[in-house]
Amino acid sequence: MLEQLKQEVYEANMQLPKFGLVTFTWGNASGIDRETGLFVIKPSGVEYEKLKAEDMVVVDLKGVKVEGKYNPSSDTATHAALYSRFPGIGGIVHTHSSWAASWAQAGRSIPCYGTTHADYIYGEVPCIRNLTKEEIEEAYERNTGILIADEFESQGINYEATPAALCKNHGPFTWGKNVLDAVHNAVVLEEVAKMAAYCETINPRNTSAPKEMQDKHYYRKHGEHAYYGQD
Amino acid sequence: MLEQLKQEVYEANMQLPKFGLVTFTWGNASGIDRETGLFVIKPSGVEYEKLKAEDMVVVDLKGVKVEGKYNPSSDTATHAALYSRFPGIGGIVHTHSSWAASWAQAGRSIPCYGTTHADYIYGEVPCIRNLTKEEIEEAYERNTGILIADEFESQGINYEATPAALCKNHGPFTWGKNVLDAVHNAVVLEEVAKMAAYCETINPRNTSAPKEMQDKHYYRKHGEHAYYGQD
Amino acid sequence: MLEQLKQEVYEANMQLPKFGLVTFTWGNASGIDRETGLFVIKPSGVEYEKLKAEDMVVVDLKGVKVEGKYNPSSDTATHAALYSRFPGIGGIVHTHSSWAASWAQAGRSIPCYGTTHADYIYGEVPCIRNLTKEEIEEAYERNTGILIADEFESQGINYEATPAALCKNHGPFTWGKNVLDAVHNAVVLEEVAKMAAYCETINPRNTSAPKEMQDKHYYRKHGEHAYYGQD
Amino acid sequence: MLEQLKQEVYEANMQLPKFGLVTFTWGNASGIDRETGLFVIKPSGVEYEKLKAEDMVVVDLKGVKVEGKYNPSSDTATHAALYSRFPGIGGIVHTHSSWAASWAQAGRSIPCYGTTHADYIYGEVPCIRNLTKEEIEEAYERNTGILIADEFESQGINYEATPAALCKNHGPFTWGKNVLDAVHNAVVLEEVAKMAAYCETINPRNTSAPKEMQDKHYYRKHGEHAYYGQD
Repeated sequence: MLEQLKQEVYEANMQLPKFGLVTFTWGNASGIDRETGLFVIKPSGVEYEKLKAEDMVVVDLKGVKVEGKYNPSSDTATHAALYSRFPGIGGIVHTHSSWAASWAQAGRSIPCYGTTHADYIYGEVPCIRNLTKEEIEEAYERNTGILIADEFESQGINYEATPAALCKNHGPFTWGKNVLDAVHNAVVLEEVAKMAAYCETINPRNTSAPKEMQDKHYYRKHGEHAYYGQD
Repeated sequence: MLEQLKQEVYEANMQLPKFGLVTFTWGNASGIDRETGLFVIKPSGVEYEKLKAEDMVVVDLKGVKVEGKYNPSSDTATHAALYSRFPGIGGIVHTHSSWAASWAQAGRSIPCYGTTHADYIYGEVPCIRNLTKEEIEEAYERNTGILIADEFESQGINYEATPAALCKNHGPFTWGKNVLDAVHNAVVLEEVAKMAAYCETINPRNTSAPKEMQDKHYYRKHGEHAYYGQD
Repeated sequence: MLEQLKQEVYEANMQLPKFGLVTFTWGNASGIDRETGLFVIKPSGVEYEKLKAEDMVVVDLKGVKVEGKYNPSSDTATHAALYSRFPGIGGIVHTHSSWAASWAQAGRSIPCYGTTHADYIYGEVPCIRNLTKEEIEEAYERNTGILIADEFESQGINYEATPAALCKNHGPFTWGKNVLDAVHNAVVLEEVAKMAAYCETINPRNTSAPKEMQDKHYYRKHGEHAYYGQD
Repeated sequence: MLEQLKQEVYEANMQLPKFGLVTFTWGNASGIDRETGLFVIKPSGVEYEKLKAEDMVVVDLKGVKVEGKYNPSSDTATHAALYSRFPGIGGIVHTHSSWAASWAQAGRSIPCYGTTHADYIYGEVPCIRNLTKEEIEEAYERNTGILIADEFESQGINYEATPAALCKNHGPFTWGKNVLDAVHNAVVLEEVAKMAAYCETINPRNTSAPKEMQDKHYYRKHGEHAYYGQD
């Protein structure tokens, strides 16, 4: 069942420790098959060194397991909620990568200070408020995904241009057109988070990059007038 | 004598440089056999590259060597005191890992700023005061362990839920149900210490994660209602 | 065509990830053949792991491709402008290396705080202002190079003694007598940028190294009275 | 000539990049044979990857080359001066290691904030003032060594208990009973410098470790009552 997607999701998960984004089992990547509405995700709490492609778990959009010998990631309901609300995405990654998680713990959105950020993420990376006690008790993981989507909607943020969010006191979620793209964005986010902290240390009164520069870099890589790369 | 435990303690010690927690010989891990009341610990000042399982030293709860060709770690009496006072633990690790030791040097407890911390350590990681001149002169290493236990008791901290302490101007001790679990907690502590420093730099007026969020994350991994992982 | 230069430029590009200066495809190195006025540069957006010497692209000083199956780097026009204005250089490197890019994002020139800096770069590393909206729209990449050269001229900075510049909200460019020398300077710049940030944290009222010390170190490595090394 | 010492000095030099203390050729280690009064030092500006034991240069205490095909390190006269003034040392190391050099660039002595420091270095690591213009012009490298020794003398610092100094706006020198011991101290110094900066960030009003604790740790490793290690 979805063997090719399992392989892809497995490889994406294995990239997380390779890029230094996860310690132990603190991360998960998933990819969705939009035709069947099923997605594939890492099992919960299994060590990366022992992980195999066949261990990946198939889940439906309610977060119910459809196939697999293991329990899916404890964050599965967050992935399900994001896939439901963001129909244009094909993959999701969650990590506790040090710098992005530190911005989340600090409760701050990451300003766009330069072109490394602007090349991949349009505008600031929003930090999403804590869930209330009631939201936690009702359905912590599912409500985490719903809240991200609600905030993007109410703040008018385009989730395809801004493929990342920070959950306050927790850590980052990133997404993309497929699971490898979501991993790519997780690496970008960590680098961007690190450099934003560095540059505020270097200049405590730092301001965002000019709008025209952000636009230039974003649109030379995205959209119909893009001219970066080989196509 | 206790050959299996020696092997386990040896492997735990070898993980310390692997996870970047120790330079040269600055660290030690031990594991206890509660039936005999004997524990196994790394020898003092022997380089990790030359260490073998058979070099591990067997010691009793007074810190007296029972078997082994080498002197036990100079911190043996601290381990002995902790095993005596914390009957539920099976392993102890001491390191000078950079970030945890820096919090210790700074004389500050590590606040719980997020879920990476809350997943493993309940509440802040306490920084234990300096020993007095008299306590140092009487029995420095033993009194270090006694003071940790006294402070946990007087502050009402559950040592099983908070498996870590910082000794002021010195460094961290962590423990766990066995020696590998203690190493795991040493890795968690270093990551948590690093991110707590990062997030105070990003937001100097940062506050702890809400109590209900700390509870949610701690209890989804621990206790009878846990649902993280595979059992 | 220019096969030896292609090999050299290829090797220089491969050193960028090796020295930790680039993530993914975020960097490019080029080298020029002053006799023909043609330069060789990395193709745009091709992963380092798949890069081969024969993939290098040959370009003229207007930035027009002369040979190669791939599109040249999207920053080609910046390289072309710098080669035109700085006749004494043989190689150029652009990266988003974390510390140098953070100074660029912070909009600050890097002061000369010590001999690691003075050994290779005379005086501060200038941070070049943002392009205006008009300059971006007219020819973003070409104008980036022109602006660097204009600023060096108007500020009276000798580009051979100061082989590096920071483009505000973007990142560093370095150059040298050939492409490997430009890579060398990119590594130096990153180290210097890191230590300058560290030492401002350690001493927020820090001042530059004394002029006579900067001179001593620069001139014991450069010019006719140099006595560092083997010739 | 002094073949065994050459081998030892070679190996010590090769440890500098291995421990992450040097980039390119920015460091040098030497060892002295007190019987002949000759010392062995790395050649100037030769890459570590190409270095061989036989390339080491033999020099006398005036800094004059006695044997070797290469020029000795440009810092040879500093080593010579330190060997002359510190008769109890057998090896010297100079690096531009990032954290120690950043304290030097910041012009600050490193306070003793904890036991990692106290285990190896008694009291603070002194930062030595800049040379005057006259001292630079007269004999920069030799006067660097003389000034270190003069400052230790005038400040009443025991060079055997405090085997490290920072030269303002430049970087650290460390020494020891032999060249490998000097490398060991260079590694300790870099770690201590890093943690001192970290802990001032965590607690800007931080104070030194209590004197009795510094004494306890220093003397459990050094002197006749030492009990750390195996002898």
